[in-house]
Amino acid sequence: MRIAELARTCGVSTPTIKYYIREGLLPAGRLTSSNQARYTEGHVHRLRLIRALVELGGLSVAKVRAIVTVLDGEADPPPSGRPTARTDALEVLAAAAPQEGPLAILAADPRTLALVGALAERRGWHAPADGPEVARVVEILDTLGDLDQHHFADRIDAYADAAERAAAADAELLRSPTGGTGPAERLVVAAVLGDQLLSALRRLARTTGTAGAGG
Amino acid sequence: MRIAELARTCGVSTPTIKYYIREGLLPAGRLTSSNQARYTEGHVHRLRLIRALVELGGLSVAKVRAIVTVLDGEADPPPSGRPTARTDALEVLAAAAPQEGPLAILAADPRTLALVGALAERRGWHAPADGPEVARVVEILDTLGDLDQHHFADRIDAYADAAERAAAADAELLRSPTGGTGPAERLVVAAVLGDQLLSALRRLARTTGTAGAGG
Repeated sequence: MRIAELARTCGVSTPTIKYYIREGLLPAGRLTSSNQARYTEGHVHRLRLIRALVELGGLSVAKVRAIVTVLDGEADPPPSGRPTARTDALEVLAAAAPQEGPLAILAADPRTLALVGALAERRGWHAPADGPEVARVVEILDTLGDLDQHHFADRIDAYADAAERAAAADAELLRSPTGGTGPAERLVVAAVLGDQLLSALRRLARTTGTAGAGG
Repeated sequence: MRIAELARTCGVSTPTIKYYIREGLLPAGRLTSSNQARYTEGHVHRLRLIRALVELGGLSVAKVRAIVTVLDGEADPPPSGRPTARTDALEVLAAAAPQEGPLAILAADPRTLALVGALAERRGWHAPADGPEVARVVEILDTLGDLDQHHFADRIDAYADAAERAAAADAELLRSPTGGTGPAERLVVAAVLGDQLLSALRRLARTTGTAGAGG
């Protein structure tokens, strides 16, 4: 199809498509003349993925580029010694996740670190104490504390219950039979849009009883 | 305090502080000479709030401006006939929420609309069928469907369980005694950082058993 049809099919403007191609998010079409190119169903799917990650997931163009780079690696025919699909999936998830490093842990309040460490032990979570998963929770709780909202830390188990249910749903979902989508793409969509879905449902669920008090 | 101390206290650079003042996110300091201004603890708190919403919450500067405009209205002495704190809180939450309007509903797949309507009825949620809460869930599910990930819709109740738990934790939290923070600020922090906390805990909870498979 031509670029105008690609634009219509995906509800994305032609200049935006050209921008994604320039930024390396979307492969260029196959040139059929000096100023015309053809696009395939593969472009439709990729463009939908980009829009989902940017528009709904709120990811930056740089983050989406990192993700599609890993996804494109997955799609290549496997040369000997290349990483497994599982390694790819972890790489792509790391590219999608908020960046928190050892610095966040060094700057953290030791009491918050202890609180999250105790939570993880109580729950049987196996994340490394200096890993990005712990760092992110610690950073958010410390920020809430700086804003005089210590009650989140006091009620952390209620949120941990909710998070565990969501994680169990994720695990079940990733075991369910897949369509044509590769495992890395599936994981990253589940991670990014799953967050958005959970957030949207939480807002919807808050309309229970106190109608209109959602947020 | 001077701007350099404000910068040090909050871990934000001086140019960034000046940018926030220019953009109307942070009130200017009190001028003590033609090129020096003094800042207060109120600035420290506001700057921390801005950083939390921008850095952790991923909100745009425009969205944060809309939020602090409502918050500043709340802080003013109440003239007769002004909206109640509750109206302010709803306004500020609307400013913080992803923008979904009637258009999203019009463009939606009718089957997804029916699915979300049935879910809300089953759960006793009272959001209007054409409101932004429903629109957001519908849009995310439709996007997942476009990406061949229909299994989210099939397992929507598992995510709804998790979301209900989180919403219950929110409700309890908002009933707990407050510090010096106004109700509108409290609600918006709970909405924005609560999402981030839930997402971070979900990632952490996913390290159960399958160590290192979080996302």
